[in-house]
Amino acid sequence: MFSAQIYRDRRQALASLVGDGTILLLGYRPSPITHADHTYPFRQESSFRYFFGLNEPNSAGLINAATGTSVMYGHDPDITDIIWEGDIPPLVERAAPYGVDGTMPMQSLAADLLRSNNIMFVPSTRATMTEQLRDVVGVNRPTAEAGTRKLIDAIVALRSIKTAEEIEEIIKATNRTKTAHLIAMAATRPGITEADVVRTMRSDAASHGWIEAYGPIFTVKGEVLHNPFHRNTMSDGALALHDGALLSDLGYASDITRTFPVNGAFSPVQKSVYQTVLNAQTAVIAASKPGVLNSEMHTLALTTIFEGLGELGVTHGDSGEAVAQGAAALFMPHGIGHMLGIDVHDMEGIGETYVGYNSDVVRSEQFGRNNLRLGRQLQDGFVLTVEPGCYFIPALIDRWEQQQQWAQWINFDRLNDFRDFGGVRIEDVVHITASGSAVLGDHIPRTIEEVEAACA
Amino acid sequence: MFSAQIYRDRRQALASLVGDGTILLLGYRPSPITHADHTYPFRQESSFRYFFGLNEPNSAGLINAATGTSVMYGHDPDITDIIWEGDIPPLVERAAPYGVDGTMPMQSLAADLLRSNNIMFVPSTRATMTEQLRDVVGVNRPTAEAGTRKLIDAIVALRSIKTAEEIEEIIKATNRTKTAHLIAMAATRPGITEADVVRTMRSDAASHGWIEAYGPIFTVKGEVLHNPFHRNTMSDGALALHDGALLSDLGYASDITRTFPVNGAFSPVQKSVYQTVLNAQTAVIAASKPGVLNSEMHTLALTTIFEGLGELGVTHGDSGEAVAQGAAALFMPHGIGHMLGIDVHDMEGIGETYVGYNSDVVRSEQFGRNNLRLGRQLQDGFVLTVEPGCYFIPALIDRWEQQQQWAQWINFDRLNDFRDFGGVRIEDVVHITASGSAVLGDHIPRTIEEVEAACA
Repeated sequence: MFSAQIYRDRRQALASLVGDGTILLLGYRPSPITHADHTYPFRQESSFRYFFGLNEPNSAGLINAATGTSVMYGHDPDITDIIWEGDIPPLVERAAPYGVDGTMPMQSLAADLLRSNNIMFVPSTRATMTEQLRDVVGVNRPTAEAGTRKLIDAIVALRSIKTAEEIEEIIKATNRTKTAHLIAMAATRPGITEADVVRTMRSDAASHGWIEAYGPIFTVKGEVLHNPFHRNTMSDGALALHDGALLSDLGYASDITRTFPVNGAFSPVQKSVYQTVLNAQTAVIAASKPGVLNSEMHTLALTTIFEGLGELGVTHGDSGEAVAQGAAALFMPHGIGHMLGIDVHDMEGIGETYVGYNSDVVRSEQFGRNNLRLGRQLQDGFVLTVEPGCYFIPALIDRWEQQQQWAQWINFDRLNDFRDFGGVRIEDVVHITASGSAVLGDHIPRTIEEVEAACA
Repeated sequence: MFSAQIYRDRRQALASLVGDGTILLLGYRPSPITHADHTYPFRQESSFRYFFGLNEPNSAGLINAATGTSVMYGHDPDITDIIWEGDIPPLVERAAPYGVDGTMPMQSLAADLLRSNNIMFVPSTRATMTEQLRDVVGVNRPTAEAGTRKLIDAIVALRSIKTAEEIEEIIKATNRTKTAHLIAMAATRPGITEADVVRTMRSDAASHGWIEAYGPIFTVKGEVLHNPFHRNTMSDGALALHDGALLSDLGYASDITRTFPVNGAFSPVQKSVYQTVLNAQTAVIAASKPGVLNSEMHTLALTTIFEGLGELGVTHGDSGEAVAQGAAALFMPHGIGHMLGIDVHDMEGIGETYVGYNSDVVRSEQFGRNNLRLGRQLQDGFVLTVEPGCYFIPALIDRWEQQQQWAQWINFDRLNDFRDFGGVRIEDVVHITASGSAVLGDHIPRTIEEVEAACA
């Protein structure tokens, strides 16, 4: 865990930004699989963990925004707990590493809130949390009201800027993730299944006690953007797309994608598409710095991809206009990246739009660009993914060809040669610094030569 | 999956038992970790899966209890789904293997229910399900009402009797589980940590793609009944208790506990306690048959343990009276066993008491016996755990000694020699047959000699 001073500083900064009122941060309840005695592995609510640290279910924190004092709510073990769960220290001892000003039993939280003025809390779409918000603050479907919006903005402002300790954790997560990617590249060969490779990766991760940041995408059908199954047999000539990552010990995420040839050698056409995606990623990383709009980085990636496909005869004409009108979304219907931290999609449990947009930068409604999760200006201290992709999605190609959508820029005859191509995505974790940006973690094979060497 | 006829027969049997009205069986929604785009591995609601089979989120089924006809509700993919999730067949195709009479889009379920008479549904304490029940049937805190109680009783009656196909699945799960137990016994040695052994087991399970039925207990502090941590270093002379199991491919559980010496050889005192627990298990399995009350099996286990501890000088006097009064609960404060099936604690998502008790057999309020999850008469076709244990819990010993509770039967002076002993539990999965009972799965080392050989 981080030092008590770090948690105290975070709470003090939050109180200062909010100014007055009572800030309620609820930890998660356990998430039942079937019922209370059969639960998923516990995951703490990220903002509670960020400000209060305690990684235990049924905890909460109150901060007096005017004074900055904080109280941790939790559970003191009774004889039944000792019999079933063991010799747990009292709450005051468990809370000590997080530097709070006091502790209280969780049962008194609802009553304490009744006596508080101007309670601010964070909405949630997680069912256990909406249930708990109903129990402790008596709201049925919590939304971001005026007072609460101030809290949301303050939390997003603070958590968006990663400190040195957080960067260290993200690097640790990324270096573990590198191991998984190297294993996948080495294990993949024609004739085995996607599941075979996933089992090999998972067995290695489990041998270290490492936890997945999310269920990995590992597939020869990379054109399916979120393909959680591992059902296909991998054939000679196909591309394998692997989007997977591990957590650090403190629960910080990474998020890395690599695409590589199942047989170890890219074909000339695969090389061309791969190099285009790599060019897009390189261009975006080079251009990312404080003050730049991430929506412009999205545009830069699309433009690079549209132009690269021109060399293959798939696209033609004015790339700027084609991208502006939305034609390039056929090849990359997702966003260029998102915030990353203790959450893979950092802070999105609060609400994606609060994290990625603001009053100056409004989310686009255009197909493809509407999936960009982070559109606003980059700032020194942000950590985000840069993940351009190029996909050939038969159902989408058919629909656009039938409607002759953007036929002035897309050569559908040529495009149909790519129906079985699949997809390429290259994703790294990038830290915005005062002067520009830096990819976090040890280098993971990325160029055509590096990837082919790692597959050998 | 099982054949369509099996699912049809199950639904027909349920309709016949219920008689009339509309039976609603809801599948689970995904369980978010932080929000909708970041979810735990999906687990289907067990009764929906039992009667309708479909292992997909956001599904539901209606059965007309008068006619037995059934409709599956679910999702038909649109272009967005195809882009993000791939080429999913239409619902009618995905529902076909389960033999339903029709399919409908999930969006029309709430409206269809408004037009239905006498809707019966199963309550749930899982937050995603209470949320969904509120959305589709408009109840805020669903409880078992009169009409619903009839449905609950019918589901429990059917699911309690395991068919040949289900027994096969439980055997498969148990045989996988045997592998994990043998690995743990072979890997354990003084000086390494509990976590080291858990990582070794998990790495092997992941290499096969096997899923844990529940987070394993693996600890030298076996006297902590539900010890989910693996924090201790294992020392020479300690006992390791391992309560862990894997699922079959169709999601059926097993539930096995073994206790073994960290250094590979039981001490004389450990042998004595272990043999006592083994005697209790052997006695209960031998006595278990249709018509016997499982609460009597609980008594039999406690009696055997109380008498066995008499040989060590820990207990003395009339074992029947001591057990009846609750004195033996000091050594085994949990129940002798529970139902097992597609849930580890089978059907307990519906409500533990509906599963284990009925109007004839009411749950005891006595300390220890109040934790018995299954008290009622055993029937041909039940599958349950038999899991006696003997624990020396310092906090509980201190409390009873201070209060001189049952001092006429317990020799606290002698008992204090066992403060560092830990605990022993031996658990197997037992099938009640017409003539008696049978332990399911391949034999897992159980006698002192077998366990010592497996640890070598």
